[in-house]
Amino acid sequence: MGFYMDMKEKFTVEVCFSPQLYDHKLTKENFITVVVDILRATTSICAAFENGVKEIIPVGDVDEARKYKHNGHIVACERDGKVLSFADIGNSASEFLHKDLIGKTVVFSTTNGTKSIKMARDAEIVVAGSFVNISSLAEWLNNQGKNVVIFCAAWKNRFNLEDSVFSGALSEKLLHDQQFVTNCDSTLGAIDLWQHAKENIKDYLSKSSHRNRLKHLVSDEDFKYTLTADTSKVVPVLEGDRFIGVKI
Amino acid sequence: MGFYMDMKEKFTVEVCFSPQLYDHKLTKENFITVVVDILRATTSICAAFENGVKEIIPVGDVDEARKYKHNGHIVACERDGKVLSFADIGNSASEFLHKDLIGKTVVFSTTNGTKSIKMARDAEIVVAGSFVNISSLAEWLNNQGKNVVIFCAAWKNRFNLEDSVFSGALSEKLLHDQQFVTNCDSTLGAIDLWQHAKENIKDYLSKSSHRNRLKHLVSDEDFKYTLTADTSKVVPVLEGDRFIGVKI
Repeated sequence: MGFYMDMKEKFTVEVCFSPQLYDHKLTKENFITVVVDILRATTSICAAFENGVKEIIPVGDVDEARKYKHNGHIVACERDGKVLSFADIGNSASEFLHKDLIGKTVVFSTTNGTKSIKMARDAEIVVAGSFVNISSLAEWLNNQGKNVVIFCAAWKNRFNLEDSVFSGALSEKLLHDQQFVTNCDSTLGAIDLWQHAKENIKDYLSKSSHRNRLKHLVSDEDFKYTLTADTSKVVPVLEGDRFIGVKI
Repeated sequence: MGFYMDMKEKFTVEVCFSPQLYDHKLTKENFITVVVDILRATTSICAAFENGVKEIIPVGDVDEARKYKHNGHIVACERDGKVLSFADIGNSASEFLHKDLIGKTVVFSTTNGTKSIKMARDAEIVVAGSFVNISSLAEWLNNQGKNVVIFCAAWKNRFNLEDSVFSGALSEKLLHDQQFVTNCDSTLGAIDLWQHAKENIKDYLSKSSHRNRLKHLVSDEDFKYTLTADTSKVVPVLEGDRFIGVKI
C-alpha cells in the first residue's frame, strides 16, 4: 500500500491572487482553473445551479449582455455592485435562487467575475468555486487527475481577502488528499489566511475592503448565504461558451 | 488633545504583492514607495549602508552592469541566485559587509530587486526596506507626512512569503502610529501573515518556495542575518540614479 501510494501520480495546487498574475501558459495542458469571485459572481453561479437553472452564459462586457437581452434572453448584469437598467437581475445569490429561473438559460456579466472566466477559457477545464459548493468541488477535483489553479477574480485586479481566504480553504481540502502537493507561496499564504478566518469567517471578512465597498449593496442575508459552506452539491463546469451543472 | 488628534492629516499604507500589481498612477504624488526584496537585494542594500558604503547604483539589466564594470566600477550582479562571472560580488548580505567596500560606490543588479527599484522610480520618494532596518525605517516614514506603498519585488512577478510577511510587519508598525490608516486588503492580509510568522520567522519562512529555491545558494548565516531585525539604523533613499544612506 505504501509502495502504491508512492507510485501514485501527484498533482499541484496553485493559487493566483489576481487576474494580473494569471499565467495562461501554465494552464493550457493538464490544468483545471477554478474561478473564484466570492462577492459575488461564482457564489451566484453555484446558487443558480442548485436552484435548477439549466445553463449560464458568462459574458465579459456590457454591450454583449445587452445584445443577448435584445435577443430575448434572461440577463443578469452588474457593474460596481449595481444592477444595470436593461438587465432582469443583478449578481446577488438570492436573485439566482428565484423559482422563475428553474430550467432557464441565464446570461451573466459582472465587474470582475465574468471577466476572469473569459480570461480562464484557454485552460483545459474551467469550473466555478464558492463556499456554497466547496466540499463537492473538492471531491470532484480529487477525481479528475489534473493540476489545479485557483484563480481569484479579485477586485479590479487588486488582491482581495474573501477570494484569497476561500482559496486557502479549498487548498487545505485538496492537500489533505495525498495526491495533491504544492510548492507555491500563494497557496501557503492563502492557507494561513484561512486559519485566521475559519473560526468566524463573517467577522473576519467584515474587515475586507470589498465587503465595505459593497456594504450598502449586499444584504446581511446574502452575505451570510455566501459564507455558508456546502448548501450545494453542484459543480458548474464550462462547456464551450456556457456553464452546465455537474451533480456530485 | 483629542481634537488635535482628530484634525491631524491621515496617510495611507498599502501593500503591493508583486510588480505585476504595482500602480504607477497611484504613487506619483505624495507617495513613498518602499521596495522590498528580503532574499536578498534590499537586505543587502541596507547591510551595505550599515557597513559604510558611500552609495549604491541599482541597474536593471546585466548589460548595463557589465558596462559599469568595464568603466572601473565595483559591480554586484546576480541572476537566479548566482553571481555572474564578470561581477566582483553577488547579492549576499555578507558580501556587502566586507570592509573593502567602506566609502565606495557599488553598482548592483539582481533578478527581482533592482528591476522593482527601476519600476518604482516615478514615485515621489523611493526607499529600500528589510528586517535589518525595519524600526528605523518605520520611524523615518512616520516623519515624512506622506502615503506609503510597500512594494514586494517578489519572485519573477509571483507572490512570495518573505516579502509579504515583511510588509505585514512594517504595516503593523505604521498603523500603530495613529497618523496611518489602511483600506487595503493586501495590507490586512500581510498583517495576518505576519501574525503567523512572527513567533518563529525562520521556521515560518523555511516553507517558502523562494527559500527552497535558494537553499543551496543562501547560507544559514545569511538567512539568519536577513531575518534579524534592527541591526541597522540607516534608511537607503534613492536620489537620482543612486541610493544614499540616511542615518536615523
